[in-house]
Amino acid sequence: MYKLFWDPGSANMAPHAVLEEIGCPYELVKVDIASGAHKQPAYLKLNPNARVPTLVDGDKVMYESAAIVIYLAEQHPEAKLMPAPGTPERMKFLQWLMYLTNTIQDSFILYYHPDNFFPDDKSRAALKAAGEARLEKQWAVVDAALGENGPYLTGASFSAADSYLHMLARWSRNCARPAWAFPHIARQLDLVKARPAVRRMMAQEGLPEF
Amino acid sequence: MYKLFWDPGSANMAPHAVLEEIGCPYELVKVDIASGAHKQPAYLKLNPNARVPTLVDGDKVMYESAAIVIYLAEQHPEAKLMPAPGTPERMKFLQWLMYLTNTIQDSFILYYHPDNFFPDDKSRAALKAAGEARLEKQWAVVDAALGENGPYLTGASFSAADSYLHMLARWSRNCARPAWAFPHIARQLDLVKARPAVRRMMAQEGLPEF
Repeated sequence: MYKLFWDPGSANMAPHAVLEEIGCPYELVKVDIASGAHKQPAYLKLNPNARVPTLVDGDKVMYESAAIVIYLAEQHPEAKLMPAPGTPERMKFLQWLMYLTNTIQDSFILYYHPDNFFPDDKSRAALKAAGEARLEKQWAVVDAALGENGPYLTGASFSAADSYLHMLARWSRNCARPAWAFPHIARQLDLVKARPAVRRMMAQEGLPEF
Repeated sequence: MYKLFWDPGSANMAPHAVLEEIGCPYELVKVDIASGAHKQPAYLKLNPNARVPTLVDGDKVMYESAAIVIYLAEQHPEAKLMPAPGTPERMKFLQWLMYLTNTIQDSFILYYHPDNFFPDDKSRAALKAAGEARLEKQWAVVDAALGENGPYLTGASFSAADSYLHMLARWSRNCARPAWAFPHIARQLDLVKARPAVRRMMAQEGLPEF
């Protein structure tokens, strides 16, 4: 049985939603980041980067949220969470999942953790602001693509990449222009939020509507 | 036939090496970043982020280097560039490819492009230094994993993730502690550099040994 190590609202949201979409048995193991549980030796043994999520599948361990999403989706092809190999939709799936994890997710690191980069408050505030400005440009790229070929990231059908966008969009809730200020992203989010699996994930993580 | 849009030494190195590993016909289309060709309307139509690489496969277009690597590897299973689904090696492949693209590659953005974030030289220098410091910590994570379960990222066998590490390692050549200052990464790089496909890619891109 899968074990997902998580903390409410963290990068586990997308893998957690994917587990709910699949409908297989799994166990949630909370890592209380506020009390520093992610830096304890037992957890660092699973994930040396002191981040959540981590997935344990029997005696196998993996981390990196986007990697876990792909792994779970390919272990459960019946859930149809990734387009079939070789299709144009597959290209879009891979492209957008990478863009979300290596570009948008990284802008959030600047926005939420400028203290990881600079010791002084002034530089931290400037880096946070730069992260926020980058996010606006990056949402605009996603929004344009969804406008051209939506309502989902791969086109007409939902995929696990859409759960990834839903997770990152939530993280923008304190930005001056959150993700849902962009109309095609807002439409995608309405569709994703209405999914029973997503509603269960949000309830289990104790997260309010956004 | 595939077309790979590229510029020497850029994020196209890994997809280019993968095309050489596969041995299929493909065409290289140079995008001269120095002269701003990546910001011309014709290229922006293919890739709105004004980055290389972009892959064109017939009438299909995709960008994001790591996505292209996965796409090519799964289109050509006979080249055995990705471990089989469901194996522990597959988990490692996905995990490390994501870590390389969303963590290490992003530290390089701070290191090489601090001007994207700050207008003043002092802040730019500080951000570049922060990027370099992060890289050292991140190489250490990869090095420890290769020491425990190497010599390749997935263990005993080469995968396309190793080409990705080779590309990012080259980008560290001006750092005080480049990737090859870490012994297990150095061993991995020696193995990857010796591959005929990698040697052909380097020669075609006109890149010197590193």
